[in-house]
Formats: sequence, C-alpha cells, structure tokens
Amino acid sequence: MPITIDRCAELHEAVRAEAPLVQNITNYVAMTISANALLALGASPAMVHAVEEVEDFVAISKALVVNIGTLSPPWVEAMRKAAARADRTGTPWVLDPVGCGATPYRTAVAVELAALRPVVIRGNGSEILSLHGAGGEGPKGVDSTAQSDDALAAARDLSRRTGAIVAVTGATDFVTDGNDVVAVQGGHAWMARSTAFGCALSGIIGAFAAVAGPLDAAVAALAVFGAAGADAADRCNGPGRLPAELCDSLFAMTPDMLTRHASVSNDTVPTDA
Amino acid sequence: MPITIDRCAELHEAVRAEAPLVQNITNYVAMTISANALLALGASPAMVHAVEEVEDFVAISKALVVNIGTLSPPWVEAMRKAAARADRTGTPWVLDPVGCGATPYRTAVAVELAALRPVVIRGNGSEILSLHGAGGEGPKGVDSTAQSDDALAAARDLSRRTGAIVAVTGATDFVTDGNDVVAVQGGHAWMARSTAFGCALSGIIGAFAAVAGPLDAAVAALAVFGAAGADAADRCNGPGRLPAELCDSLFAMTPDMLTRHASVSNDTVPTDA
Amino acid sequence: MPITIDRCAELHEAVRAEAPLVQNITNYVAMTISANALLALGASPAMVHAVEEVEDFVAISKALVVNIGTLSPPWVEAMRKAAARADRTGTPWVLDPVGCGATPYRTAVAVELAALRPVVIRGNGSEILSLHGAGGEGPKGVDSTAQSDDALAAARDLSRRTGAIVAVTGATDFVTDGNDVVAVQGGHAWMARSTAFGCALSGIIGAFAAVAGPLDAAVAALAVFGAAGADAADRCNGPGRLPAELCDSLFAMTPDMLTRHASVSNDTVPTDA
Repeated sequence: MPITIDRCAELHEAVRAEAPLVQNITNYVAMTISANALLALGASPAMVHAVEEVEDFVAISKALVVNIGTLSPPWVEAMRKAAARADRTGTPWVLDPVGCGATPYRTAVAVELAALRPVVIRGNGSEILSLHGAGGEGPKGVDSTAQSDDALAAARDLSRRTGAIVAVTGATDFVTDGNDVVAVQGGHAWMARSTAFGCALSGIIGAFAAVAGPLDAAVAALAVFGAAGADAADRCNGPGRLPAELCDSLFAMTPDMLTRHASVSNDTVPTDA
Repeated sequence: MPITIDRCAELHEAVRAEAPLVQNITNYVAMTISANALLALGASPAMVHAVEEVEDFVAISKALVVNIGTLSPPWVEAMRKAAARADRTGTPWVLDPVGCGATPYRTAVAVELAALRPVVIRGNGSEILSLHGAGGEGPKGVDSTAQSDDALAAARDLSRRTGAIVAVTGATDFVTDGNDVVAVQGGHAWMARSTAFGCALSGIIGAFAAVAGPLDAAVAALAVFGAAGADAADRCNGPGRLPAELCDSLFAMTPDMLTRHASVSNDTVPTDA
Repeated sequence: MPITIDRCAELHEAVRAEAPLVQNITNYVAMTISANALLALGASPAMVHAVEEVEDFVAISKALVVNIGTLSPPWVEAMRKAAARADRTGTPWVLDPVGCGATPYRTAVAVELAALRPVVIRGNGSEILSLHGAGGEGPKGVDSTAQSDDALAAARDLSRRTGAIVAVTGATDFVTDGNDVVAVQGGHAWMARSTAFGCALSGIIGAFAAVAGPLDAAVAALAVFGAAGADAADRCNGPGRLPAELCDSLFAMTPDMLTRHASVSNDTVPTDA
C-alpha cells in the first residue's frame, strides 16, 4: 500500500496523542537537539545509557534509538544489552551507524549492532555503503564518495540481509524494505551546516516506530522532519538559528505545512531493478 | 519570616554582585543550557566530574549541584565524594534526582545521595513521590501519575527525614522546610517542551544557595527562573527559541519584570495539615 | 611578514575551499557549539574520543583539537594517544588547557599535554599563567587575578619552552611565537556570558591550522571569530541568542565584515621586551 503525505500527517497525530517514551543511547553532540526535537514533535525522550539500568529502561520505553556517534566500550556494552532486550520484548529499535567506515573500531561496532535486528537503520550514503560492504563478503570496503545510486543498491541488499528497513538520507532520502523504494523530498541545504540533524532524525524515526510499522515510520519521520527543516529555513538567514526554528516547526506542524514542504514518491525504481 | 518577591530580587542582585562559582555534576543533556542559564543569571558555572579532582573543586566552589540525569558508576562515585566533601566543608549542595523511580538503579542512587545532606532537593511530583516512597518504610512505591497534593505531603515528610528544603516543581511550584509551604507561580507551558529546564533550574538554585539560606534560595530561584521563562515566552512562537530567550530574560531581569511574571505565596496550607 | 586582515580573509576562504576534517577531543559542554561553529565556518568537525579509534581517526584528519574542560582518565588517555600520533604524522594539533590551575589533577594533565608538541596553545590569562608557572622551575604558582601584561610575558616564555604558538584571549587577544606579539581586537563582552565560546574558538584555530602555519592560523581564527561575535552581537539583546547568531555570522563572513569588526596589530611591544 503506498504511503501518502496524509498518512504521514496521521502518524504525527498518533505520536502527539500517545507521547511515546523514546529511549536514546546517543552521542554527546546530539543529545540536546535530539531531546528538543522529540519534545517539539510530541514525544517523550529520555537519554539513558548506564549498563546498570539500560535494560530496565527498555522495559518501560515504547522505542529505542541507538546512535554510535561518540562510542566507547562502556557505551557499546549498554547498546548491546539494550538492543538485545528490545529485540526480546518486541520494542522497535533504530540504529544510526554514525561514521561507519571511518575507523575499524567504529565499523566493527556498527556491523555487530546491525545484526541485533534493528527495525530501521538510518545513515547517509557513505555510512550505508560502508555498513553494507563491511558486513558482506568480498572487498567492497568503504566508499566515502558515495553516489546515491550505489548507496541505494547497498541499502536494498543491507535491508534484505538484516531484515531492517533501511533509510539513506541525502539531497533526496530513500527508504527501502529490500524490495520497494520510497523517495522522500524535503529539507534544506543549511541542515548540513548545523550539527546532529541526522542524529535527531533517527530519534524522530524512533518516535514514529512506536506508533507504526517501520516502513511507514521511517517515511513519515523523514517527511515530517524534512518539512520542518524547510519551513524553518524560511525564517532563518543561515544555519545558526535552524535548530531552534526547526523545533518550532515540528511543534506547529500541520498537514498543510507538511504537504507544502515535503513529498513522498512510492514508484521509485532502483537502478539495479 | 515570609519571603517576598522583593526579597527574591535582592537575592538575585547578591548573585550578580558575588558571581559565585557553582560546581555542577550534571547530565550531558543539561550541561550547556545549565551553564548558559547560570552565566546569564550572573553566576560562574563549572562542570567538573572526575573523581580525581571533584573534591579539590568543591573546595574552591561556593555551591555544588548534583544531577543524576545520565548517571553511570564513575559519575556516581564522583557525586558521592563531592557531596560528602561539600557536607564536611559546609558548602551548600543541591540534589536533582532526575527520573527517580524509573529504574531500580536510579532510585537506589537517588536514595543514597539524599542521605548525604543536600540543603535542597528539587524534583517533579513523580520524582519526589518516588524518592519519598523508596526511602520510607512500607510499600508506597512509585507513582507516576502524581497528584500535586500527594507530592506535597511526600515533600514535607521527605524534608523532615532528610533535613533538606524540598522543592516540587510543576504547574505551581511548592517549597517546604517540612512544616511551612511556600507556593511559587511563574513559568510557561512551553518550558515542558524544551529539554533540561528543570535541570537548569536546579543549577540556578545552587547559585542562590551560595548567597542565602536554602529556603530563601529555593524560592528566589523558582521565582526568578519562572519569571524569566514567562517573559521569554512572550518573544517566542513555540519552545524552540525558549532556551536562548530565557537566558536573555535572566540577563535582563529587573525587580519589575520579576513582579510582573512571578508571585510567591507564603500562606499555603498543606492538605494534610 | 606581518599578518593582515586581508590574509585572515584569504585563509578563511582556504578553509571553505578545503573543508578540512577537524577532530575534536573536547568537553561535553562545548561539543555542540564547537561543531556548529566549525560547520558554519566551512570546516568538517568530528568528535571522536575512544582510545580504540582515536589514533585511526587522527590519521584521516587534517587537524586535532584537544580540550581538557571535562577531563577524566579514559579521556586523558585518548588525548595522549591522539596528540602523540598527531605529532608523529605531522598533523597540527591545538591544546586548550581549560581551567588549568583550578585543581592539581587538571594542572598536571595540562602540563603533560603541553609537552607533547601542540602547534598552538590557547587559553585565558589565568590558564596561561598557571600552565607557565606549573611547568617552570620555581614557585610561580597560579595567579587567578591575571594581569594581561603578566600573561603576555608568561605566554612568550611558554611559547619558547614548548615550541607552540601561544594565544592568550581576553578583552584584547595576544598571539606570540616567543618573540613577536600580534594583538587582535574583536569580539563582544556578551561572549563571556555564554558558555564555551573559548572552546569553540580553539576548534576554529584547528580548522585554520589545517590550511596555514600555526601563527597565521591562530591570528586568523581569532580575527574571524572575534568579528563574527561582534557582528552577531548587533543582532542580539543579550547573550542568549549569541551562539546561533555567531554561527550565522561565520557562515556569512566576508572580507568587508571582517575588516569592519576586527583588527590585527603586528607591532605590539611586550612590556618585558
């Protein structure tokens, strides 16, 4: 069934109505903007990472988001435990493999976590290519000059291999379940000049995953977040005020704003199809 | 002696005149907004948490604020040492038991720290109920659907048991020394849709505790912070710009602004009196 | 060769053209504003601190910035390894000895790192005096009521001893190579009432050090950052919105803006000369 912008707006209303508790094990840079974006969206964020409590917290959360941006061994141990518990209890969890490919340690952690059955994996083209190449057979390696078509083929294969919905974000965002591909348009170029918007978006996917299946959740999150970014940019003179204004746009989001600033295309044909 | 809004304004002037060094062991999400709010208020914040230096830093600070928002064992060890040193040297210290009741680990840490003689404990209704119930005899447990009257009775009993002034913040804030209750009105609903304002408020209480007794300090901090929030909201369209605007309101705070946007009531009668 | 404002503008264009990857091992409070300032400037920041990957990341970075603001032993170990690797590979690295002198642990770490051959050391007057006094012979101790002349003499001697360019920032900034002194004017008093601008400036020095020698890099960074702060303050009513507006000013910086809001003086005569 195709996913429409109207469906995205309905899911945002569901997030507002349910205010799901979303547990984030995320990086230091992204914590504040992630929490603020989730609050403005209508969700209830919590940042909890201690091994001593992370599983207990999964038990009361509606979704979990794991982001390896500023990883270190004690945090990775918490990520493992939280992801495993989420998988056991059927709590949807989202993986953001930040910087996968930049160092062997980072790549190894991303590969390990991707095998713990996240319902959504979100990354930029290079991260998805690296995660795909590292986990597969053969010397695909890391491609830091990712073409979007290359990333899309990798995303589909990564989705088939992990069972996760894979979202590749960039100038155009693509979401795939391993077969179909949905393209989402929105956002603004300044979003790449302010830190941690990708991380915040992964948090937003978590909130939608608490109220919908992972494919719809990923598409709706990308559309709502992209629309908020585009709407916010209209009130900005550069990237500086974008985090604050994007939160105001999330807070004020209406179906009309969403339609005006984002679009969803269900008939995207992958080049390897 | 009743605490008036004029007294709150005088104490803010004292903070500005003395610019007390306020040591914060706080959570990752709250650090930046806490530091910015303390700077805008007129205090001098420092975020220091290493076990190797935390006691030396207490020795040069005028107040200490301990917030368990993103706790983990090495941080808890530093909190213990810092709190114990503060108690020995007579440095006032404030406890913010973030999320007490959410997990057994978090509750146990909050209970342990509450026994180390903070001069003020600040939390929302659920946190105060949980901290009170966990530390007392009998199966009171955690009530996450806290009624303010319930929290107020728990706050008074927690104050008697710990010797701390207890502040319960919400739509109306209450401060109690175990007998009397002072109610503070101020703030804006959007403050609940932007992260870590409660944590920043605990930092502000620390700054006031450096220049006044804990009851006056807590009331003045709540009034000044609430007035700043209400004043800031007048310049906002949602929660996005509230952190920045609240800092500007703290920076520009005058007795007139304080009177306009906050009020203090000394004749609050607890329902269990 | 004297360093002109035109040269500073040229170096900023070089940063924009090369978008150097700048690795930051910095404090929790400063991470977001540091990343945002580097992005707005035109650089590509990354915050990476795990011992397991820090050396691999140095290998792909164009500059490294080490800031001890919220230090703890695992982070210090990563700082050591990253600095040593940067020195071996000729990657320029910048040291920000935040709070040097406040506790013995902090001072010892700053002294140890200063010996690992940073190309630039940036601090306020007290930090530079403390780092100089602690590392030298004799009981100079820490002077927290630093006079700028005192700090300047200490900066020159510290530069001779470490081989680093030393930048002392304050109402007027001074940069020295141990002999000559360049003075930089810019900035705004409100920058001291918003957290972590000094830390973000150290990050900016790292970006310039990726495209120029350390003396020119430090002077250009101070001029561009100071000009951005002064330009931003014109659009503010206090310190609250300064971080966002400063990023917009960095993003929009032109040679004309730079000339209008900052100046460089190459004929500064140290009082001990």
